[in-house]
Amino acid sequence: MTAATYDVLGIGNAIVDILARTEDGFLSGQGMTKGAMALIDEARAAAIYQAMGPATEISGGSAANTIAGLADLGARTAFVGKVRDDQLGNVFSHDIRAAGVAFETRAASVGAATARCYVLVTPDGERTMNTYLGAAQDLSPADIDPAQVAASSIVYLEGYLWDPKDAKEAFLKASKIAHDNTRSVSLTLSDAFCVGRYRDEFLDLIRSKTVDLVFANEAELTSLYQTEDFDSALTQLRNDATLAVVTRSEKGCVVAAKDKVTAVSASPVKQVVDTTGAGDLFAAGFLFGTVRGLSHEDCGRLGALAAAEVIQHIGARPQTSLKALAKAAGLPV
Amino acid sequence: MTAATYDVLGIGNAIVDILARTEDGFLSGQGMTKGAMALIDEARAAAIYQAMGPATEISGGSAANTIAGLADLGARTAFVGKVRDDQLGNVFSHDIRAAGVAFETRAASVGAATARCYVLVTPDGERTMNTYLGAAQDLSPADIDPAQVAASSIVYLEGYLWDPKDAKEAFLKASKIAHDNTRSVSLTLSDAFCVGRYRDEFLDLIRSKTVDLVFANEAELTSLYQTEDFDSALTQLRNDATLAVVTRSEKGCVVAAKDKVTAVSASPVKQVVDTTGAGDLFAAGFLFGTVRGLSHEDCGRLGALAAAEVIQHIGARPQTSLKALAKAAGLPV
Repeated sequence: MTAATYDVLGIGNAIVDILARTEDGFLSGQGMTKGAMALIDEARAAAIYQAMGPATEISGGSAANTIAGLADLGARTAFVGKVRDDQLGNVFSHDIRAAGVAFETRAASVGAATARCYVLVTPDGERTMNTYLGAAQDLSPADIDPAQVAASSIVYLEGYLWDPKDAKEAFLKASKIAHDNTRSVSLTLSDAFCVGRYRDEFLDLIRSKTVDLVFANEAELTSLYQTEDFDSALTQLRNDATLAVVTRSEKGCVVAAKDKVTAVSASPVKQVVDTTGAGDLFAAGFLFGTVRGLSHEDCGRLGALAAAEVIQHIGARPQTSLKALAKAAGLPV
Repeated sequence: MTAATYDVLGIGNAIVDILARTEDGFLSGQGMTKGAMALIDEARAAAIYQAMGPATEISGGSAANTIAGLADLGARTAFVGKVRDDQLGNVFSHDIRAAGVAFETRAASVGAATARCYVLVTPDGERTMNTYLGAAQDLSPADIDPAQVAASSIVYLEGYLWDPKDAKEAFLKASKIAHDNTRSVSLTLSDAFCVGRYRDEFLDLIRSKTVDLVFANEAELTSLYQTEDFDSALTQLRNDATLAVVTRSEKGCVVAAKDKVTAVSASPVKQVVDTTGAGDLFAAGFLFGTVRGLSHEDCGRLGALAAAEVIQHIGARPQTSLKALAKAAGLPV
């Protein structure tokens, strides 16, 4: 195995978030499922935007948020995702590069506009997402650079990649290249409804060891095994996965290895402002610990710390130095 | 005088802010004057964006911020400003309409892109602005609807309108229509460097009573009269203007009428996060008090309250209900 150029390469949907505060009544009035991510077409996107209040635009995308968090912690990172060569694509590209991430995926010069996610944040801080995939639909295996994947210690993939039509092929291509080069592959299950759409394929990815490390939250885990019983689902996941991390919001997380399960507490939070990106930033912290060879407990603590930062402000990218926060918390970064 | 349809009609540059945190060294390295607004061309805009960190996009524009604040307080408002029919123009148009403001200015279908302001926020909360006027350059007298101006109790204009080539003609057209219909006209001097560019014209607007109420901060006031002595400058302004309000940051404001000067304290602030929009929101609160026929002191208190809200978060549009804040402070809104 040659020395890696990148600690983590992320592959995901390149999305700009359009965030607005709202009340619960707006969600029900619009037929939205609170806390979930719904895929929408262009007409629905226009209707939602028309109905929602004044907004803020901040780069998002699940894996992209994770990679931005990793870069902030000091990891060497790269991202692969598809934007259009339009103003919002320029915003996405600027923000991820300005975060210190290598981002070289060619922007589409024709076709749909850059992906947007209309994020409605209720007074409890919960986010409800409506994603227009647009140009992100066009991510294909041709966008995967074998040399870049081979030069990355960890390839991190989002389950949401099962939604665009050719992205799963890109995902599988990257995964194979990574393993052929003795690199490791991580996957987030992304969303309980996403798990509902692709349950069998996700289980197959895990059982076939196409992925080495799985991130899930409680809802995704119980959706995966179609049970309401957390412990039963966790037992099944331990049986299927090489390593898994399950986040449980304010209850912290469990790191489930074959030989042991490590529970880690959540980090203290003054006020939950916007949960957008909580899982993404948890993964950033955990992967950073992994890159640095830390214990499962310290990986979990780093994940909790990064998640706590991002839910205390609007938007899914860190606004405070995660490295400084981790140092202040006594973590070996 | 017929009943007004709008309490306040604002005319200004329609701009989307691109805000990023930075250090003082970045400003000096880029040759920027801290706290000021500099006009930049497209090449400089690209260079600044390339150099600056990950950003957040939030609708801005000085008079537009004021009008959004007025709408939030419950005033009936309209805005006139020029965007291009591009993604950022769509963002601007959405945000101001979603704030409850009538915005009908036709977007340009050719020419430069929607105006952007690259706002660098230093750790002390001070903002330094770099404005690419783009499509805002194309605001012209044809964009002024005489019936709309005639139906607005107050026309509010930003001094920055002296920068685009034909906007001053739009300004003067609106001002004349307003006065012909016994409406009143307010002007903000916008920025000390803007005053430097157009001192004689601004003085003429004030002395000729083309404007009835002038907003300025200390730097703009002393620039207007080319003196370092605040009291001397204020005396001259009282002599020239029908009514003037001078904001003094943490020292509050003074409302300078012919017959008396009323000093009003600033509102308490926990932490200054980003001063972008402070003057704009002060004007919103003051004008709202004026619309409601409140005393100069209460107008000043409303201004101080709105300014305090906007400097405690990123972006120049209110994020908390100003009406609720004003009620909680015991102000008669």
